[in-house]
Amino acid sequence: MSQLELLEEHVVFGGTQYKYRHDSTVLGCLMTFSLFLPNKETFSNPPLFWWLSGLTCTDDNFTHKAGAQKAAARLGVAMIMPDTSPRGEEIADSEDWDLGQGAGFYLNATEKPWAPHYQMYDYITKELSAIAHDHFQLNGPEFISGHSMGGHGALVIGLRNADRFRSISAFAPIVNPIEVPWGVKAFTEYLGDDQETWKEWDATELLKHHAGKEIPVLIDQGDADSFYEKQLQPSKIATVADEKDYPLTVRMQKGHDHSYYTIATFIEEHLEFHLSQLKNSQ
Amino acid sequence: MSQLELLEEHVVFGGTQYKYRHDSTVLGCLMTFSLFLPNKETFSNPPLFWWLSGLTCTDDNFTHKAGAQKAAARLGVAMIMPDTSPRGEEIADSEDWDLGQGAGFYLNATEKPWAPHYQMYDYITKELSAIAHDHFQLNGPEFISGHSMGGHGALVIGLRNADRFRSISAFAPIVNPIEVPWGVKAFTEYLGDDQETWKEWDATELLKHHAGKEIPVLIDQGDADSFYEKQLQPSKIATVADEKDYPLTVRMQKGHDHSYYTIATFIEEHLEFHLSQLKNSQ
Repeated sequence: MSQLELLEEHVVFGGTQYKYRHDSTVLGCLMTFSLFLPNKETFSNPPLFWWLSGLTCTDDNFTHKAGAQKAAARLGVAMIMPDTSPRGEEIADSEDWDLGQGAGFYLNATEKPWAPHYQMYDYITKELSAIAHDHFQLNGPEFISGHSMGGHGALVIGLRNADRFRSISAFAPIVNPIEVPWGVKAFTEYLGDDQETWKEWDATELLKHHAGKEIPVLIDQGDADSFYEKQLQPSKIATVADEKDYPLTVRMQKGHDHSYYTIATFIEEHLEFHLSQLKNSQ
Repeated sequence: MSQLELLEEHVVFGGTQYKYRHDSTVLGCLMTFSLFLPNKETFSNPPLFWWLSGLTCTDDNFTHKAGAQKAAARLGVAMIMPDTSPRGEEIADSEDWDLGQGAGFYLNATEKPWAPHYQMYDYITKELSAIAHDHFQLNGPEFISGHSMGGHGALVIGLRNADRFRSISAFAPIVNPIEVPWGVKAFTEYLGDDQETWKEWDATELLKHHAGKEIPVLIDQGDADSFYEKQLQPSKIATVADEKDYPLTVRMQKGHDHSYYTIATFIEEHLEFHLSQLKNSQ
């Protein structure tokens, strides 16, 4: 297991917010991640909430701006926030803000120059998971959530690992990347021209063919989000869910935009949604 | 009154978070400030909470990181967040992080090159106040608070305007700047060598001689704050308050540091403190 370097440690709401750096074997570079642990005396074996951030973000955005620690401390939930791509001068990058560093799309790239470093799916589901489980003894139930590109990541990782995650939520997710500009651009670069391979990384396609455990999904989408119509379109996955009678809810949030203010407003409800599913399944 | 340019507008917790830019007459430069308004239908004449940030900050730090909008929306409090100094290429600056831009210390500088631009006291108590009152019709009761250098600003502005502000609070404030390195450095630069003039901008000195209305003061200080012993020392103002039987409370917060995580943890209690004083005085 990678050695962890503690970069920050802050008491907050009776819990502790950490930031760590480690040398990732899967990604071949130094990576940071953030971790919130609720009060250890009160909550000895907390469930683990995975948060995947959007384009241009690091592990800091949600940690600094969502205000989620308050609800997580009260509810007794641990939260882990990965970065959004491999990083560093030796790692392939693009001048575009929606490709390369800060835009890993939570998949395993097969095409150069992105392969072999851009393997965010394996990094999260294997390497960082092993750190959470082995180093921090976070062996309770797990939930996954994210924003925009990270909402896509949460849906894809959650649906592909429905035996592991108990529920999925997302804010303004890219639900059908193979049909929208952000996704087509990234998938062409990372996965190449064979669009059949893209479907493994598309939540709407995965849901169409999903035959595993039906883990519930909650999506919040602001109706004042400037990316709503062109890049997001949650009705695409909602239609598939309806056809399959899959437990997926899309809530349109009036006046809300694509910013962290929307996440801050509803993150407590997302944590409560995940915990309520846990109670239902016990 | 300055014309205001709206830079950002976000729905959050049923209220609205704004960011504006305007050409400040007092400071002679373009300035930004942030403003949160609770739901207008529910709260038609909200009290106004002033937040003054610390060294290196802008109006964004508290706005993005404190999570205060949730409590302010629930309690029906408007919040205004000024920047911490004049800004721009034509404005005097220093290579030091604790002097010049980002470090205005909420006073009116008399010495060059800082005069005539560095007049943050007048900017806040006159120009930005006029904008709050006239442009946004925020004519309810007012409270003032801040962090570190901004805690110093809140104490000084509050005590010098005790007929206007109903209560003061602060997180890890510089309470006695004329006796600590940050304050001595800044006051020497901004106010010159005559240390008698410094006392007008020192909360502990102001409290010693305070003969006006006794507005209550709440201070939170983390005991794991790396600036606590050298720069902050809240016991200095607490001793003066004790001697005068002035209503000032210092709470030591175990394990808490100088970061915004401490502010996030206790900001709701600060807002409730201010509102409770309002009820007491009605």
